[in-house]
Amino acid sequence: MQRYFIDKNYDGENQFHLEGDAYHHISHVMRMKVNDEFFIVFSEGKSGVAKIVDITNEEIIANVVKWEDENKEMPVKVTIASGLPKGDKLELIIQKGTELGAFQFVPFIADRSIVKWEPKKEKKKLERWQRIALEAAEQAHRQYIPKVTAPLSFKKLLEYSQPFDHKLVAFEESAKLGETSNFVKQLNEFNAGETVLIVFGPEGGLTNDEVKQMEESGFCICGLGPRILRTETAPLYALSAISYQLELMR
Amino acid sequence: MQRYFIDKNYDGENQFHLEGDAYHHISHVMRMKVNDEFFIVFSEGKSGVAKIVDITNEEIIANVVKWEDENKEMPVKVTIASGLPKGDKLELIIQKGTELGAFQFVPFIADRSIVKWEPKKEKKKLERWQRIALEAAEQAHRQYIPKVTAPLSFKKLLEYSQPFDHKLVAFEESAKLGETSNFVKQLNEFNAGETVLIVFGPEGGLTNDEVKQMEESGFCICGLGPRILRTETAPLYALSAISYQLELMR
Repeated sequence: MQRYFIDKNYDGENQFHLEGDAYHHISHVMRMKVNDEFFIVFSEGKSGVAKIVDITNEEIIANVVKWEDENKEMPVKVTIASGLPKGDKLELIIQKGTELGAFQFVPFIADRSIVKWEPKKEKKKLERWQRIALEAAEQAHRQYIPKVTAPLSFKKLLEYSQPFDHKLVAFEESAKLGETSNFVKQLNEFNAGETVLIVFGPEGGLTNDEVKQMEESGFCICGLGPRILRTETAPLYALSAISYQLELMR
Repeated sequence: MQRYFIDKNYDGENQFHLEGDAYHHISHVMRMKVNDEFFIVFSEGKSGVAKIVDITNEEIIANVVKWEDENKEMPVKVTIASGLPKGDKLELIIQKGTELGAFQFVPFIADRSIVKWEPKKEKKKLERWQRIALEAAEQAHRQYIPKVTAPLSFKKLLEYSQPFDHKLVAFEESAKLGETSNFVKQLNEFNAGETVLIVFGPEGGLTNDEVKQMEESGFCICGLGPRILRTETAPLYALSAISYQLELMR
């Protein structure tokens, strides 16, 4: 069943009105009719099955007929900070990372980021990334749409990291040396409701200097197993492992 | 450092000859010179650092200067059976699945596979898939290149599944009902050297009939958490979780 997010809190009434993109998709793309059903998610995450009561030229009027009880969100809020990669790799990270339960994406300009970030194109890029997150959240049946921020400088990223409960950095040199236990130790310390920041390098990896500065800022350096994962694969590994540890094992 | 696979067993000598694609890549793409180094992997998985002794018009002659001690391969051999998906999704599964340690890929024609498989194009497709696996294996620093088979019918897949030590099927309906423990129980029973087959549906998912037949053939039905994962994302989740459980936790 299709799933739509509505940019309103639940107002205590079962009937609600949908306009804009969701209205267009339901009436023109899906060609739904009165009595057809879809999933609706209010902005605070309350979600349920809605049945169409009326379709006008401007809006869908629908009733919630059944609330969704299950929580679809990760017990911890995981922010993925990616050293700005080339091409459309960040789009893959956002799409797959949203399916895998990420809470937020924070690109940053790493020493070895090859891409020149053009502030002129920032608005368009952000809109595109946010739309990818929305569509992936709908498809994955999430109750929350992850946010994507504009790229930060490395210095800003360090400032930004301060309030997080857990700060990790995935470092392939650490993986190459056979370090395997830090990531497991960290995950075992995660408690429901806490915030987690995990930093990943761009294609060329993080520099020793970046890793040293993060270590000094309280980050834990983690290897993600014996194989070298690409910049767009490592966040998917980390999110899957967190879901396995916190959602399946507990 | 670049990594190349050589289609020969290690012959006990430290010096070896490289021809064909690897020769071309080293001499013409990477433009390496005498004394430059690269990783070499012999066909039984023995790997090390090689130093170039000579470059002729046809071959590279190199010496192994240091053997690689670490094992880069998963302790269990995981075969990913994917219901043939649309577009280039199987390519993403092969590329990322290889990075994440898969042993083999077996596409199959599922009830809800939309793509028509054209036997005329089979040879070309298989070559392309195998090349993606090779390149991902080089990049991920693996010691083994996963094999990709031609697509099987569902009936053949059931026959093919017989000898596996562990047979799992990822079923989203099971995930929707909140089943969370089967996958963990299965992973806890995996022992080093064993073979594992995991079946994933195409975009539309597996049919109840397919799942029933697999259950009757001894498959364990597993949910992969509360979110709905796309057909190309679910295998990456499973491989990451297996690596986390068997390579990082143990």
